[in-house]
Amino acid sequence: MPEGDFEMSNNGKRIRLWVSYDGTNYHGWQVQNNGITIESELNRALTELYRQEIKVIGASRTDAGVHALGNVAIFDVNSPIPAEKVCYALNARLPEDIRVTRSEEVPRDWHPRKCESRKTYEYRIYLGEILPPVKRLYCHHVYRPLDVEAMQRAAAILVGEHDFKSFCQENAQVESTVRTIYSIELTRQGNVPGGEELAIRVTGGGFLYNMVRIIVGTLLEVGFGRWTPENVRRILEAKDRSAAGPTAPAKGLTLIQYEFAGEERKTE
Amino acid sequence: MPEGDFEMSNNGKRIRLWVSYDGTNYHGWQVQNNGITIESELNRALTELYRQEIKVIGASRTDAGVHALGNVAIFDVNSPIPAEKVCYALNARLPEDIRVTRSEEVPRDWHPRKCESRKTYEYRIYLGEILPPVKRLYCHHVYRPLDVEAMQRAAAILVGEHDFKSFCQENAQVESTVRTIYSIELTRQGNVPGGEELAIRVTGGGFLYNMVRIIVGTLLEVGFGRWTPENVRRILEAKDRSAAGPTAPAKGLTLIQYEFAGEERKTE
Repeated sequence: MPEGDFEMSNNGKRIRLWVSYDGTNYHGWQVQNNGITIESELNRALTELYRQEIKVIGASRTDAGVHALGNVAIFDVNSPIPAEKVCYALNARLPEDIRVTRSEEVPRDWHPRKCESRKTYEYRIYLGEILPPVKRLYCHHVYRPLDVEAMQRAAAILVGEHDFKSFCQENAQVESTVRTIYSIELTRQGNVPGGEELAIRVTGGGFLYNMVRIIVGTLLEVGFGRWTPENVRRILEAKDRSAAGPTAPAKGLTLIQYEFAGEERKTE
Repeated sequence: MPEGDFEMSNNGKRIRLWVSYDGTNYHGWQVQNNGITIESELNRALTELYRQEIKVIGASRTDAGVHALGNVAIFDVNSPIPAEKVCYALNARLPEDIRVTRSEEVPRDWHPRKCESRKTYEYRIYLGEILPPVKRLYCHHVYRPLDVEAMQRAAAILVGEHDFKSFCQENAQVESTVRTIYSIELTRQGNVPGGEELAIRVTGGGFLYNMVRIIVGTLLEVGFGRWTPENVRRILEAKDRSAAGPTAPAKGLTLIQYEFAGEERKTE
């Protein structure tokens, strides 16, 4: 059947995409007036594929420079193209720094931001005097020594259900700033080519705007010895963005995994 | 002392640079008529710094797309700038995908290609159906299953002193094609974000043109089950480039370490 000949019907389906990207060359996820975004590229490729205007809804609207191995998006369409084949057709129309790793049909009422989920971010820090060029787009560079053990103790204080108002960009419009973090794992990786790296993996039920980057910026202050883990408890209690550390740079952050309640599937 | 005021004398010194780069945007190491290279950028930055024409001599003339954590170059200069400070002055004049990680004075007769050395290359292969965009410039993508154990047995056959004529680009002009490989280590890395990777580390006393990439291309044929480890022994004996496997893509290759005889220092 030629590509333009799909039969249209009223019983359209909802398709979920798992999206992996290098955020370096994009103005983040969300469609903007000026600048290409992950969302605008997906919309363009889908509109080309189906020859009708398609707009996706994304699970996480990542910032400019943030990477993903497993972000999620949905769209609705009337089309006989099997849902599982959509990823291949899209990859042929997407630039090589965006890949759809899987596509599948989901119930018409399924929505990635309205169902229970766990997501995992990884923040990578390169420890050493000079940042190797092959790491420059994927690691934040810290050349001062870090007390990783103190950072670990500080991280443990943030695990659990808390009001993370201090860890949210100030002008974010949200009803509640209470969120649950399931785990924060710090791993020193000494055997990577080029030197030592610190990977900080944060898993939670949901995150406020810039929350992971502000957590990392705060843990770094502890690592530098400027704050103690006990300070981090007081930062939580302050419910004030200015109490926490700076927002760590976007390029060190990768959204690595989404898990949805009741589903076996996950990204990695 | 202002930058243009260095006293010149006849007793110039030889300075060694340790150079780390992302090869993606360069036409390889060696100066070419068309296209920017790592060597041409180093020459330009040094010439700017010293206000006299400087040309480096490189240890390894890596191909376009090949990366390095620790390539080495030397140059001679008459200048009061302390050798140890040259790296900082150069990095201020180099693009961010080339970094000089260390600079130091060496004896006037020291030459990186005329002294005994060990170098280590790492070749990275991403195993999985779709290559995550964050890996696209640093990994070769293999989506067929690999028999890594058979590859390991084949690699063991290549370790030692052999005539590697079958593993050398045909038109390379060299006196002898005998080289020594000290070790080939294959490591599956399952815990990397995004999926499984296979790292192949090859350490040797010296390498022929494209030798590591042809070794990897040959080991992949074994991994696919097309050849057995015993075939690899016959490929060595054939002394014929056409007997070996294809040259694996440049982007998966990184020169990670140089060690010079009698020196403690190494890159990593």
